[in-house]
This record gives sequence, C-alpha cells and structure tokens, in this order.
Amino acid sequence: MHRRHLIIALALASSLLALPAVAAEQDKPTPTSKEILAQSKPSEWHSPNPDNLLYMQLPTGRVLIELAQDFSPLHAANIRTLVREHYFDGLAIIRVQDNFVTQWGDPNDDDNGDKSKVRSIGKAHKTLPPEFTQPINPKRPWTPLADGDFYAPQVGFSGDFPVARDPISGREWLPHCYGMVGVARDVDPKTGNGSSLYAVIGSARRLDHNLPMAGRVLEGMPLLSGLPRGPEPMGFYTKPEQRLTIESVRLASDVPAKDRVDLEVLGTDSPTFAALIDAKRNGHNAFYPNPVGKLDLCSIDIPVRQTPTKAAKPH
Amino acid sequence: MHRRHLIIALALASSLLALPAVAAEQDKPTPTSKEILAQSKPSEWHSPNPDNLLYMQLPTGRVLIELAQDFSPLHAANIRTLVREHYFDGLAIIRVQDNFVTQWGDPNDDDNGDKSKVRSIGKAHKTLPPEFTQPINPKRPWTPLADGDFYAPQVGFSGDFPVARDPISGREWLPHCYGMVGVARDVDPKTGNGSSLYAVIGSARRLDHNLPMAGRVLEGMPLLSGLPRGPEPMGFYTKPEQRLTIESVRLASDVPAKDRVDLEVLGTDSPTFAALIDAKRNGHNAFYPNPVGKLDLCSIDIPVRQTPTKAAKPH
Repeated sequence: MHRRHLIIALALASSLLALPAVAAEQDKPTPTSKEILAQSKPSEWHSPNPDNLLYMQLPTGRVLIELAQDFSPLHAANIRTLVREHYFDGLAIIRVQDNFVTQWGDPNDDDNGDKSKVRSIGKAHKTLPPEFTQPINPKRPWTPLADGDFYAPQVGFSGDFPVARDPISGREWLPHCYGMVGVARDVDPKTGNGSSLYAVIGSARRLDHNLPMAGRVLEGMPLLSGLPRGPEPMGFYTKPEQRLTIESVRLASDVPAKDRVDLEVLGTDSPTFAALIDAKRNGHNAFYPNPVGKLDLCSIDIPVRQTPTKAAKPH
Repeated sequence: MHRRHLIIALALASSLLALPAVAAEQDKPTPTSKEILAQSKPSEWHSPNPDNLLYMQLPTGRVLIELAQDFSPLHAANIRTLVREHYFDGLAIIRVQDNFVTQWGDPNDDDNGDKSKVRSIGKAHKTLPPEFTQPINPKRPWTPLADGDFYAPQVGFSGDFPVARDPISGREWLPHCYGMVGVARDVDPKTGNGSSLYAVIGSARRLDHNLPMAGRVLEGMPLLSGLPRGPEPMGFYTKPEQRLTIESVRLASDVPAKDRVDLEVLGTDSPTFAALIDAKRNGHNAFYPNPVGKLDLCSIDIPVRQTPTKAAKPH
C-alpha cells in the first residue's frame, strides 16, 4: 500500500455501523462511499426540476447550478429572467479570493470598469426584498443533522440543500457551505438582484444570513475553485485577459432534451444518504482507526450522478 | 458603492468593540483589519526561526512553510534532512483534490509510477514514531479562543499555529485548518516520514489527530489552492505534463541572507491579534449590520508581513 492511499482511504473511510461498541464488527473495514452508493435504490434518486437548473458554460467546461427556489423564490425568478435574456453570455469570472469566493458578473460594473458599457439587466428587477432568512415552513422536508453546528442552533437538509435554522426566531437560511451560490449586493440589502453571483470556495460561514442565497453548484465546482486567484486584495482580476469568459448560461428547461445532462441527486431524506453520513462520521479502517465521531454540516457532500439508464443508452 | 464592495466590506468587517451594547459606539463603522494592523507595534511582530522555515520554489512563485518544530519535532528534523539533501528538487505536485488537499512528492512513488525511478530519501528516516498528538506542554505559549470548536474540546493559538486540545486526555494537536501542512503516510502510522506532504485547501478537520502535521503555509497558499484539480477521484494527476514541478525546497537558514524574505508573523498572544479576532467576530458596518458573534478557529488568519524597515531599505 503506497503513501498515496492514505488520504484516499481517509476520504472514503466509511462505515454503516452506528454502534462502534460492537467489537466483532469493528475488525471489518467499513464499506466505502462508493460501495454504499452502489447499494442505493433508484427510488432514492431524483432529477432536479429543469426550471431550477442552470447550465453555465465556461471555456473549461460546464457548471450546473440548482436555484434555491424554495428558499429565495424572488431571487430565483429574477435570475431566470436574466438567464432568459442571455444576460450572462459573454460576461466573466471577475474575482477569485483565496479561501473565500469565486464571483462572476459584468466586469464593467466595477470601479475599474467602463460604466458606459455596463450591460442592461433588461426586464429583471433592479432591487428585490432581501431574502436572507425566511420563516421555517413545516411543510418542507427536513432531515436534521444531529451533530449540531458551530454557527447555527440547528442544521440539517431540505431537498437538495443544507439548511440552518433557529427554532427560537422561527427562521431558516441557507448556510455558506462550500459550493453554495450567493447573490452579491451593494450596501443596501435590497440591491442583490442576481446579476452578480458568487460560489463559496472556502471559509465563509460568517456571511450567513447577511446575503440572499441563489442556490448550489451540483456539478463543476473544480472549474470555479481551481482558478488563479486575482491580484487585488479581495481577489478581483485587474486585466481583461485574466478573466474567464462565461460563454452562456441557460435554464435546463430551455435546452433541447438531447443536449441536457441527465443528472440525479440523492435524496437527503433517503436511507442511503443517512448511511453515507454515518459512514463518514463513524467509519474506521486500517488507515483510520479513530473515527471523528461527528461531522459539520458543510463537510457533507450531497451525491450527484448521471442517470444510469440514460448513461447506458446508445445515441 | 458598487456591488463589488459588498464582499470586500464583509471580509474586512471589523470592530474593536467588545461590548456591542455601547449604543453610541455602534453607529460608528468599525475599523478594518488593515486599520487595526496599521496600529500594531513593531514588538508585536517576530521573524520565524530560519531553521524552521522552508522556501518551496514553484515555477509560479514561492511558497513559505513554517515547520511545526514544537509539535512534530521528529518530523520537522526529518524534513530538514530531506530538504538539505535537495530531495524535493525536481519532484512535483502530484495531486489536487477539490475542497480537500494539494499533495506533493515523488510521482514515481505511486501506483502509476516507475518504481525503479523512486528517489532515495538518503539519510532521512524511513519511519518515525507517529506524532499525531502530544502531551500539553504548560511551558508553551497558549492563547485560548473562547468561541469553542466543533471538533475539539478546546482550541487556541500557540506560537504561529492554531492548536486543538483535550484537557481530559491532556493531549494537544495541530488541526487541519486551511493552509496547514500534513505528512502523508501509508497504512502503518509510523510511515509518515515527510517525503510526501499535503496542504489543506478545504474541509479536512476529520483528519485531525490521525496524521502527523508538518507545519503551516505562511505565504503562497494561492499557488497551491488555485491549481487545476486532478482527474482521478482523489485528485491525482495521471500525466507528467499535468504536474507542476517543484524547482527546489530550501531551508531559510541555508539561503544567503540577501536572498531571504524578511518576513514577520503577528504574535498570536498580542493585543493586535486579539483585536483582529474581535473585529471579525463582532464587527459591524453598513454592509454587515449583524455580526456573526463567534468565529471558528480555522476562519482566523494569522497575519504575515514583509518586515517594514527591510522592505523600505534600498538595495
């Protein structure tokens, strides 16, 4: 076994054992995430609603973003308007701040930009009521994470999203976990209209419930996180050639069926998702004798896969 | 004020107020990190010991790593031996796994490598006693972080490092925060010898006290974090041309004085460091009316600067 395997094994370290006290079972190395996923049932997976799914085409590949329709409906609607106007086509990644965010939008809507060339947002709203938090809706699915959280009184999952809650105030919000997409704004809380968005690539929980959240990247995070950091203190690029151009952003429902990605998300209320979490939390094997015992919300990935039947279908 | 400013302001949001109840003071926007640092005293800064400081030269720039001499003395010594043998020169970044780690070492010491070309570690030890944790040493400096931690009973800072502790077991360890450098190993806990190292670029606290820690990146993290992710599931590169070559690694004390970086680290026991933390924790301004109120250990940066007098000195 080579050195390379260590972190592999740690990353995959997994167990279905809820009770690490069962000594006989502990000698068995626990199944990997891959093995657990292979046992999942087709009914545990679902396709995201194509009206909430964005395809952002970069020169380096495609980023898929699910809009947080249930949490920020007004922002999701405004972003759909912008996308249908092809607002983002030809705009760019304007900023990558290390261990924080990758932001995209109009490079001219900036101190160094040419104000006369700022792109019109067309029929989209210029301002929106801030959707930083919202009342907890008891009708929405809710799978609590018993491990707790450093920043919020309660955390868990709802639909395809990690969620933070405060039962005292009765409010909930989407946390700034890795891969979440937020809405940039000016000083005025109403100014986040979706024309500039950012993906969290590092430590950003301190932004929680101070910005509206747009959604979550389902696929393609490495295309946003593996970019050169910008030279300005906050990671802004200073020259046009530093900025990666956004070729297009489309709503999946506007894309011809043959060009869509047949993507499925594992249900966050499914037994397989619970098993994956417990495996990461309590898993042990030869590399990793001391399970961590608890997991923070943002360290839990929600699995995404190509629909198996479609993937196997000949073209 | 433009949209770009939002996250800037959030990132810099800061306050020296320990008591947010002082209403008259609250109307004042709180000073930024830059403003707080500008008030620091020269005596609050110190130069890292050049025997513990590595210069890793990449084609894209230089990464400075401080060895964790006080926490992993045997591993620090072995890494010094490897560096003095020029072991790392011509080796490479072998792996970048998104939201996890960037690892470097010998590409031939790998499943896909040419075993006949594996580089000798020379006089360095092949195995070392695992230094995953160590007894809490009451003689070492200790500045506790009152905010607590999700993964450890106690956290704080000692010297130039974030530290986690368990007062019950009397052990302490270096946590897998962003920018920390760990020692890759095989299954056997003794096999981490420092010939392959990794920098944490994402969510990795679940690795805590399962690996020896080598140190911390003081400067140059973007050169390690802003790399294309490798194509294998765990981020390994598969082709030589994907790997960034390490031109050289030198100990600062072996570098001629004229070629050294005059670097200073802010004391983690200094009033200015405490003020920076409190500013990030309780700071408020027009962008950010609701301070987060607490900070997790890994979200706190330890400031590093070029020595001002030296920087100003003509060559």
